[in-house]
Order: sequence, then structure tokens, then C-alpha cells
Amino acid sequence: VAVMPLPAADAAETTGGDGVCHPRGFVAGHASCGMKRSGKADLALVASDRPATAAGVFTTNRVVAAPVTVSRAQIQAGAARAIVTNSGSANACTGAVGRRDAWRMVEATAEALSVPRAEVLVASTGVIGRPLPIEDVVEGIHLAATRMSDMHGRPAADAIRTTDAFAKLGETSVTVDGTLVRIGGMAKGAGMIRPDMATTLAQITTDAAVAVPVLRRILRESMACSFNAISVDGCTSTNDCVFMLANGASGASVDSGRAARLLRDAVSELALDLAKQVVRDGEGSTRVCTYVVTGAVSDAEARDAARAVAENMLVKCALHGADPNWGRILAALGAAGVHLDPDRVAIAVGGVPIVTAGEGVEHAMSDAKAELRKDEVAVEISLGLGAGHATVIASDLSPDYVHFNSAVTT
Amino acid sequence: VAVMPLPAADAAETTGGDGVCHPRGFVAGHASCGMKRSGKADLALVASDRPATAAGVFTTNRVVAAPVTVSRAQIQAGAARAIVTNSGSANACTGAVGRRDAWRMVEATAEALSVPRAEVLVASTGVIGRPLPIEDVVEGIHLAATRMSDMHGRPAADAIRTTDAFAKLGETSVTVDGTLVRIGGMAKGAGMIRPDMATTLAQITTDAAVAVPVLRRILRESMACSFNAISVDGCTSTNDCVFMLANGASGASVDSGRAARLLRDAVSELALDLAKQVVRDGEGSTRVCTYVVTGAVSDAEARDAARAVAENMLVKCALHGADPNWGRILAALGAAGVHLDPDRVAIAVGGVPIVTAGEGVEHAMSDAKAELRKDEVAVEISLGLGAGHATVIASDLSPDYVHFNSAVTT
Repeated sequence: VAVMPLPAADAAETTGGDGVCHPRGFVAGHASCGMKRSGKADLALVASDRPATAAGVFTTNRVVAAPVTVSRAQIQAGAARAIVTNSGSANACTGAVGRRDAWRMVEATAEALSVPRAEVLVASTGVIGRPLPIEDVVEGIHLAATRMSDMHGRPAADAIRTTDAFAKLGETSVTVDGTLVRIGGMAKGAGMIRPDMATTLAQITTDAAVAVPVLRRILRESMACSFNAISVDGCTSTNDCVFMLANGASGASVDSGRAARLLRDAVSELALDLAKQVVRDGEGSTRVCTYVVTGAVSDAEARDAARAVAENMLVKCALHGADPNWGRILAALGAAGVHLDPDRVAIAVGGVPIVTAGEGVEHAMSDAKAELRKDEVAVEISLGLGAGHATVIASDLSPDYVHFNSAVTT
Repeated sequence: VAVMPLPAADAAETTGGDGVCHPRGFVAGHASCGMKRSGKADLALVASDRPATAAGVFTTNRVVAAPVTVSRAQIQAGAARAIVTNSGSANACTGAVGRRDAWRMVEATAEALSVPRAEVLVASTGVIGRPLPIEDVVEGIHLAATRMSDMHGRPAADAIRTTDAFAKLGETSVTVDGTLVRIGGMAKGAGMIRPDMATTLAQITTDAAVAVPVLRRILRESMACSFNAISVDGCTSTNDCVFMLANGASGASVDSGRAARLLRDAVSELALDLAKQVVRDGEGSTRVCTYVVTGAVSDAEARDAARAVAENMLVKCALHGADPNWGRILAALGAAGVHLDPDRVAIAVGGVPIVTAGEGVEHAMSDAKAELRKDEVAVEISLGLGAGHATVIASDLSPDYVHFNSAVTT
């Protein structure tokens, strides 16, 4: 098998990359292994041209796909040179065969890219319960390895799409101690479109040098207000995982608390951008709503309250209909299991107060309706009890969601 | 205002009544107060011709409608002669005015039926956040009181409908110590149809004499496997309440443990019948699915698991599409927060095993699909860990649900 040498960091200089290839020293490749009926690319490789530290966050579902099990083990050491991702099949609920196949993907990637086997992460997304066509996948890995380039961030992001309406990429940068640090990422987002799909995979790269404990904290903290704050349908997948790799190619080293905070804020911003793209995607979703809960007795209760409202089926239907249906929001809050004094609740939609002291502001409803018709809207809910606050970003629920998700595919 | 005397128990002898009027000594009346645009009856009175013991169960929502607050206070003493119910407006989130109006309904009913004010229960269902047209409601109460009859169980059940597709009534009987005891009930069920609606009101009557503590236990225990085991959309309303009245008109007295169990079983059967009618109702619902979870480490965990599956949006969509999508069921179990060993999970649809030891039984899928196409289907999930079991009865999720619930009404 022909393996192209990875381009050096300098090669990225002239062009700049998209998504995960935006930071220096990161390249990507892609291939089609035949798992998508369309014949489009369904395999992506992301690699660093030098050693990189790595961190990951994984689904909390107790049913986890084989690649999650494998990557959890691999990432313990905090180092990764490459990530291999396939779409089309989740390699979940596939038993011993699935675990063997996930390791085969790791091994093939290590061989094809000439990187240590211990430094390869693996992710899968797609239909649950079907074995991978593993020989085709291995062949695809070797093919993708011949196409590694810092220009291939976008085709890599395309390759991890399932029926996502668009590829999700993002880039940002931050200056650390006078040196420009680049951060890039890609994600795939589904759950709105068709069955059996992992809701989120995301991969973030940076060319700063970041020690493993710092990288882990940065990733964890940046998730709180991005991927962990979004909801499409309240369903937790078996395959969700977000990886971050840091390779130091920029020459900047994140070794102070201040630098770590700068990087964390930049990563958070990028992760939020990617997470919002996930919510916006899907033929069924027509608007993105940011629910901001304040005045809860704790941040945890604020989060429970925000989730209870954002994921309430009737609230989601009302959002779809641009209906400022505050009764449904109050009823959802009342069932959220949090401290609540209905008489203190205030609700505003796009800045228009529709509930004060627990009662509706009738004359405001037409203004609120106009706000709800926008593509993106904020619903602010004040519980009036304490200092706890939280934000959840969610989509509406449309008939199309049900159409897509009740189409028979098993 | 002309108030007809309540007919004596003997009057019921010749005809038998429907629903709440099936037991001896119970009568019902109805009226239109103009809260339904159609002009149809929107107010129901149910009364006993003699003192009756009473029990009630109420919504666990922390936002409760005024009639729930009032009836909770009224039912403390364990005695009730009458229940007044209006549809079209939930009298929820209506503040001090709402509480005053709920008490006005109690007072008007007491006056119109010449029963003690302390022995009147009140319930409301309909749109949240709008004040009742209280003068019209009071007038309707006086009108309904002139129409009290043991033949009016069905029109009373019609009067508490909002956009329910059909009235929900049920009757049964049980012999206690050689005496026939009748039990009747009515319910209204929504949540599938249009916004802002209480999900459940139900009223059950019996002509046995039952002491208050026994009646309370019977009602509570009969709810566990009926109204508390159903789910349409996972949304808990502000107005849910179930009342039970026992007037002793049959001459039978439930004063032994055996008699109480007999009555409880009969009430449970009736309540399950009414609860299933609620799930079946709604233009959006196409099938009723009974999820039976066994092998959980406790009954509580079995219930959490059953609810997590039954209320999972993707599972509900699959049910609508008659898709034996076991991957979604496993993913929902994994996110349910219960003890789980995926490799021990077995799932059967209508008796057809589709998962054994955590993996799919591919050749069974077409048989399972045929089972799922039926109006009513059982999904059995064995966790293989312990003796905990639970049952939840739920509807599917159809595009029509979303259409109806996103129609703008505020």
C-alpha cells in the first residue's frame, strides 16, 4: 500500500486549511468504502505531522458503540497522532465482532499513516446494529492515507456526514504570549433527519502545545456551554464523542493559567459554533432557540429547568408554530423537579416579556410571535429564587422530523 | 333558580346509567356556558343522592391550576356529594382571580344542588392562562342542576371533552359479600390533539360504602397500573386529577381486606380501560403500545426504563412507522439512568424476539414489523438483572401530533 508522507507544518503556511486543517501541522484525508448508498466519501482521517496531546469526551449512554470503548482506552495516555472516522454504520450493538473491527480500524490507520498504534482514535456514526464491511473500510483507510493534505478539511467533514444537510466546520484563532494559535474543528450532527444516527461527533485541533491535564480541562469546560448544552430530541446516542488534539506546531505553548483561559474561551467559541450548526441542521428543524434560565436555586437546577423546557414536546411544537405559548413553558417548569414559585416566574421571548409574576402579558403576544418567527430566538426564563443559571440550545419539533424518523429503514 | 330534587337511588333501578351514573344513587347533568366555540356542552355536574366518601389523586406538577388547589383542600375531609367540571378553559396560571372563580364554582354547585359547600369538588380542563367567563359558568351550573339524571352519564362525559375524538366512559361491577357493587367512570384525554390541554381528568363512582382510608388506598393503588402508567407525550399537566366517590347505595359495605381487594381490582380494571381510551384518543395517535420491562434490579428502575423507552422521541417515531428499530430501544435504555448490561438485554415485539443477548435477530424483523402494524402491540424488554418489573402504555408520535400542537392558538 502506498503511503504518502505527511506534509510538514510549513506546507500549511501558504494556504491555510479548513476546519481541522486550519491549525498548522494537521492534515486530513477521505475515501469511500461503500457504506453510503450514494457512493460518497464515508471515511475520514485526521492526522498531525508530529506528536500531539489529546483529550476526549464521550457519550454518557450505558450502551456504547465499539469505537467509543476503543477510543476511551486509547486516549488514557493523552497522546494521539490520528483519528479515523467512518459514517454509514455506527458499529454499535455489534458485540465482539464490532470491537474487533474497531481495533482493525486503529491498526490499519497506524499502518497506513506510519504512526504508533497507541496514538490512533476511532469514531463511527450511522445505523446501529449492523457490522461494518471491515475489509472495505481497511481498504478505504489505506486509500485515504494517500490523500492526506491540509487542503482536505472540508472533504473530511463531508465524509463524516450521514444525512446531514451540510458539512460543519469552524476555525478561529487566539494570540497566546504574542504567538498566533489556530484552532479548527469539524462536527457531524443528526438526530433530526433519519433513524439510528449518532447525534454528535466532533473533532477539534489546535497548533498550540498543551499539556494533557490542561487540554482535558479545556475540552471539558468548553463542552459545558456548547455540545453539552444542545438538544435536538433529548436522545443520547451510543456513539457521541468529541476529540481534541494539540500539536504545538505554532510554537506557542499554553503553560500559564491565563493562556489556558484564552485557549479555553476560543475553543468554547468554536465548539458553540459547531454545536449550533448541529442544532440548525436537519430537514425538520426550522429554528434554533436558546433557552436561558436564571434565578434558579443552583446552576444544576437551572440546567434541569432549561432542559425540561427545551425538550418538552409541546413547547417544541409551539416553537415550530411561532406560538408564544407560555402556559406550556410554565407547565414544563412545574414538572422539572426543581424549586419553583410560579408567582415569581418571568418569561421573555426575544426580549419581549410575555410572563411577569407568573401571569401572562396579553398585549405582548403579537410582538412575541414576531420574535419567534425569526431563525434564531432567545427565550429568557427567570425563576426569581437564586443565582443559578444555565443555557440550553434546542431546535423546534416539526412534522418533518416525525416523517423522517418514522420512515422504515430496519 | 329552579333546582330539581335529585332522583332517589330507586329511580336508577329500571334503567342503569352510563359511566359515572352506572352505580346506584349517582346522577349527572350538563350545560353549555359558551366556552366551546362549537356551543357544545362544556360543563358537567356529577352528584350522589346521599353522602359519599371521596378520594382524589392530583397532578405532581408544581404549577397547579386553581381548581386543583381548591379540590385538594376540599377532599381532605374525605366526603363529597358533587363534582363540577368545566372544559374549554383550564383556569390555570390565572392567579387570585382564578382561585376566586374556582371557589365560585364550588359555591354555585352547592347552592344549585342543595349540598354542603364543603362537599363539592371542582375540576377544569382547557387552555392555560385565560380567566373563566365566571358568570356564564355559574349560570351553566344552575342550568345543569335542573337536568340531573341517572341517564346523563354520557352527555356529562361529552361535556368534559375538549377536542377529544370520543367520550370516555366505562362501567364494571363486582360482587362483595353477595351484593352487586357497581363501579362507573368517565375520563377526558388529550395531549395528542391541541395545545394547552390538561392530559387527564377522570371521575369514578361506586355504590359500595367505603371508609375514607380504604377508598384512598383503592384509588391510589388502582392508579399505579392505569393512569400513572400511560404516556402520550411525557408532559405533565397543571390540571390532572382523578376523583372517586363511594355512596353505599348498593347496600354493600367494603369493610374487609378481601372486599377491598375485590373492589380495588375492579376499579383498577375500569381505570385501565379509561386510561387506554385516553392513549388511543387523538387524531395523531395510530397505535397503543404496552411496554413491559422485566429483569430490572428494582420496580422503580423498571419503571424508569419503561418510561425512558416509551417516551423516547425516536422510539415513538419508529412505532409510528411500524419499524422494529431495536437500536433506538437499546440507546434509550442506555440513557435511562438504570443498571444495564447491554449483553443481557432481550426484546420481543408482539411475542417475536428481535434482540437476544444484546444483539439483533435479523431474520425476525419482518415478523416483528407485521406485529407493529397492529392497533395494539406489546413490547417486552428483559434486562436480565433482577426481579423488578413495570408496565407503561404509550402512543406513537405522528406528524399529525406536531401539526395539531404547532397550530397557533395563543
